[in-house]
Amino acid sequence: MFQSFETTASPEQGPERLAALRVAMQAAGVDGFLVPRADAHQGEYVAPRDERLSWLTGFTGSAGWCVALRARAAVFVDGRYRVQVKTQVAECFEKVDWPETSLADWIGAALPAGTMGFDPWLMTVEQLRGLDSKLPHDLRPCDNLIDAIWEDQPAAPMGAVFAQPIALSGEAHEDKIARLAAGLGEARAAVITLPDSIAWLLNIRGSDVARNPVPQGFALLHGDARVTLFMAASKLTDVREHLGERVTVADPSGFEAALRALEGPVRIDPASCPVAVAAALEGRTMIEADDPCILPKACKNSVELEGSRAAHLRDAAAMVRFLAWLDAEAPGDLTEISVVQRLEAERRGTNALRDISFETISGAGPNGAIVHYRVTKDTDRPLRAGELLLVDSGGQYVDGTTDITRTVAIGPVGEEEALIFTRVLKGMIAISRLRFPKGMAGRDIDPFARAALWEAGLDYGHGTGHGVGSYLSVHEGPARISRTGTVAFEPGMILSNEPGFYREGAYGIRIENLIAVQQAPALPGQSVPQMLCFETLTWVPIDRRLIVPALLTQAERDWLNAYHAEVLRRVGPLVDDVAGGWLSEACRGI
Amino acid sequence: MFQSFETTASPEQGPERLAALRVAMQAAGVDGFLVPRADAHQGEYVAPRDERLSWLTGFTGSAGWCVALRARAAVFVDGRYRVQVKTQVAECFEKVDWPETSLADWIGAALPAGTMGFDPWLMTVEQLRGLDSKLPHDLRPCDNLIDAIWEDQPAAPMGAVFAQPIALSGEAHEDKIARLAAGLGEARAAVITLPDSIAWLLNIRGSDVARNPVPQGFALLHGDARVTLFMAASKLTDVREHLGERVTVADPSGFEAALRALEGPVRIDPASCPVAVAAALEGRTMIEADDPCILPKACKNSVELEGSRAAHLRDAAAMVRFLAWLDAEAPGDLTEISVVQRLEAERRGTNALRDISFETISGAGPNGAIVHYRVTKDTDRPLRAGELLLVDSGGQYVDGTTDITRTVAIGPVGEEEALIFTRVLKGMIAISRLRFPKGMAGRDIDPFARAALWEAGLDYGHGTGHGVGSYLSVHEGPARISRTGTVAFEPGMILSNEPGFYREGAYGIRIENLIAVQQAPALPGQSVPQMLCFETLTWVPIDRRLIVPALLTQAERDWLNAYHAEVLRRVGPLVDDVAGGWLSEACRGI
Repeated sequence: MFQSFETTASPEQGPERLAALRVAMQAAGVDGFLVPRADAHQGEYVAPRDERLSWLTGFTGSAGWCVALRARAAVFVDGRYRVQVKTQVAECFEKVDWPETSLADWIGAALPAGTMGFDPWLMTVEQLRGLDSKLPHDLRPCDNLIDAIWEDQPAAPMGAVFAQPIALSGEAHEDKIARLAAGLGEARAAVITLPDSIAWLLNIRGSDVARNPVPQGFALLHGDARVTLFMAASKLTDVREHLGERVTVADPSGFEAALRALEGPVRIDPASCPVAVAAALEGRTMIEADDPCILPKACKNSVELEGSRAAHLRDAAAMVRFLAWLDAEAPGDLTEISVVQRLEAERRGTNALRDISFETISGAGPNGAIVHYRVTKDTDRPLRAGELLLVDSGGQYVDGTTDITRTVAIGPVGEEEALIFTRVLKGMIAISRLRFPKGMAGRDIDPFARAALWEAGLDYGHGTGHGVGSYLSVHEGPARISRTGTVAFEPGMILSNEPGFYREGAYGIRIENLIAVQQAPALPGQSVPQMLCFETLTWVPIDRRLIVPALLTQAERDWLNAYHAEVLRRVGPLVDDVAGGWLSEACRGI
Repeated sequence: MFQSFETTASPEQGPERLAALRVAMQAAGVDGFLVPRADAHQGEYVAPRDERLSWLTGFTGSAGWCVALRARAAVFVDGRYRVQVKTQVAECFEKVDWPETSLADWIGAALPAGTMGFDPWLMTVEQLRGLDSKLPHDLRPCDNLIDAIWEDQPAAPMGAVFAQPIALSGEAHEDKIARLAAGLGEARAAVITLPDSIAWLLNIRGSDVARNPVPQGFALLHGDARVTLFMAASKLTDVREHLGERVTVADPSGFEAALRALEGPVRIDPASCPVAVAAALEGRTMIEADDPCILPKACKNSVELEGSRAAHLRDAAAMVRFLAWLDAEAPGDLTEISVVQRLEAERRGTNALRDISFETISGAGPNGAIVHYRVTKDTDRPLRAGELLLVDSGGQYVDGTTDITRTVAIGPVGEEEALIFTRVLKGMIAISRLRFPKGMAGRDIDPFARAALWEAGLDYGHGTGHGVGSYLSVHEGPARISRTGTVAFEPGMILSNEPGFYREGAYGIRIENLIAVQQAPALPGQSVPQMLCFETLTWVPIDRRLIVPALLTQAERDWLNAYHAEVLRRVGPLVDDVAGGWLSEACRGI
């Protein structure tokens, strides 16, 4: 079982650890110390040794900060974690609503002047710049004071690295290196610190952190189409030959020295580049631009898309088996946890699952309204007739990463839920059916997912979709479907399409398919040079019992019926008779 | 007749005037001189004495620049004027596609270094900053060299100023002054150079430029709720009493000295503030922010909205009489010009028309595809059976400014035209019907006007809508419905809703209503705190013969039928039997 259901909160250790940190602060001559949740690679998942925020404060969320001062300390968490932080974190830490209150605002008020220490590997150039522009304080890079007091801190992860063969990646890493090196312009080298960028560029995968099949390391992409990979040699045993002559392996301990030895302009991405990297490059011209892997990684080639289609079909069969089982058994004595367990078992049953792509969200009744709910033994809720169950989950397969949400009725549910479910569905269909000119970005299409909800005075507080990697991170930049999505869509980008609605204390609704951007076939009389549209990747029934047909337009109904017919055609042959019988019923026309 | 149809181009005078300008440049010690189309008030219409660009080059478009160097000279025009500029401007001026090629790009290539002269009253702080950041040149404010050589330059306009009574403005100017002064914050005064801002703030109107009922002048809004108005006393005879004690009138010649005498921080709007104003304020703290009148002026109060409704009904009756006449007479021997003449006559027939709100666009057949077409005797095209006629027009009434586009079939037209007309209509209806959360801006809703066209691979190259003033400018900021619209909608804003489609060389389609932002009534179960929607202001039939009912959803059909029923109910009583009969037919259900 990948997922666990323990409540890991340990608020009682907070005061003692905070006291020890303050002693270390004193010794280091700083008035405060910043503890981010992030590691040096700014990913969503971190290795156990990088769980400094959780170790210090007890807070286990996937984003946040602690600021420790001599007399005060605070934990900064966003809207997802306002409830959780109260149960996980001791009283010696103030709880601050972030980003409504910025770190700078709080620090400025709590300590008008002084010296703030921080680990320059854990803060990005952009983050430091933001703080620096708002605070008169001396922001001083120093050793990590948590590491100094964390006696049984785990060692750095040493997960074996394996090759992603060209049959799955579709492009040799030598060709990727040459292609990107040719695009560096006047930069003599680019610093790459994002593990999924390195994994994509070198066609390797790893197992240093949960959920993301990436190895931790750093890389330098040189203008002459060579790469220096800073990664522990012990992890690379199986890929030495794969890496080949263009890639030189070096020990991570030599990374800083290698940076200092670089000549000529160096390209860094201020959004992810650690302050320590920029410090090592001081004196050189630094060209600030996106990590050069981000855009090409997002545009999947035809082999990656073919892999994603295969992974999605395999995953759909697991989902269909799961939904058929659920329909037969629920409510019974099922709980949110038994739902997670069964679903993971179905995915494991494919014999192809390498990991789940994130902690499955299984929210029954009011828990469905907690957008980033992760069930624990303490919160586990029995399924009950008349309630909705929201299940958001995904799998990591070597040929693709999946992410799907289905909301299902446990027994007959109220009319309100069905009316709103149908409006959410209308939004999901609107994005699925959309054709739009090349050049449009997420913010141009996000409103189509909301219009049917707006009509009823409803909305949801998250974006409509995120990019998804190819056997990489389930959350991948640079494009997204949201008000903040300014990167134009390009063919091959895989995105989630997941409108929702949440009635606090009552229920949550979300419907999510993955979709891939593709060229739209030209139409007679077309005046726009290039039109784009979406290919649907996810083929799993949408609960017909929650759909109010009268709310659908004919075009929406046609889309839905065609979708379900296609689900049956594609997935029917992949499941046994029992699940197949359920599937036929679930795919009936409306 | 307000509109004229003369072809005013006189390219033959260009070379001589350019030569004279170069002599003046030599005398002034500059290597180049910038001639914008704008006057000191940055409006769309300028007084005859400010038609410097046209006088020098022959170009009569509403936007553009000339850059004159010792050996080369160029006229910069945008996409609307690429054809026109060729016929109006002599060969001694190069024609540059702007903004694709910026002034800075062209100057930089044509003259790598040197001194560029400009009139500091005609360039804004923002424009100068843009040039300055890109050019190594010495940008030198100097006397206007066109004025120096333009012997028969007209005098400054001296149109009489009249009061906009509180029965039409809805808020006493003393109250507006107090309200805005209270919002100045740390600024001790704000400089106001936009005529429509001054007109709105002081509840006055004028007649210094065509189409916009505004007087030219400058104003200082002081933090103690007083205004100094720099305007020729001779224009103000009729409003001395109206202006009252809070407003001090000063001669425009004293404006610069008054700026120099200001103390404390002064607020300027870099988008409209002349460089000369900023220069006069040098040494003082300048707070850069929007002209403080822009947002409150855009949010019409209930009296202004009531006025607008009345103006729109009056205008609708004129439009209906015009359309009924057109339907009876066309094609006959009608031409684009006879259409303009008849429409203006119908508006004049209301006995309330103060001006047209812009030059009527009357485009038959392929001329309809020229988005900013203005018919002249040289281009006047006869109406022909089987062609579309696009008429975009509006009136200035004391209670409101109108702007309406209708595209009508002259006899039976092709199926393509009807299919696309229906898609344009679907976009117009989508905006009309939309409900959306407060906080949304134009760029969030603009795509709804395009989606039905996108579906067919079509789009249009202009924004969907602009703000409209209250007996002020027909183009008014700050909100707009377009990809560049970032200002959130507020109740009371009046906007145009005018999607279109243009097939070059064949036809143009545009359908335009004005709409006002309003609070949407709360719905049961609503979760969004505040929803907004639009009130339709324009009540004129949309050509049913161009609508393909099968392309409409039931909701769109319902909207259309309800709209036409309402047109008949509201406008029927305002027209005679002949027009009434036509109207009944035009408003039949679909």
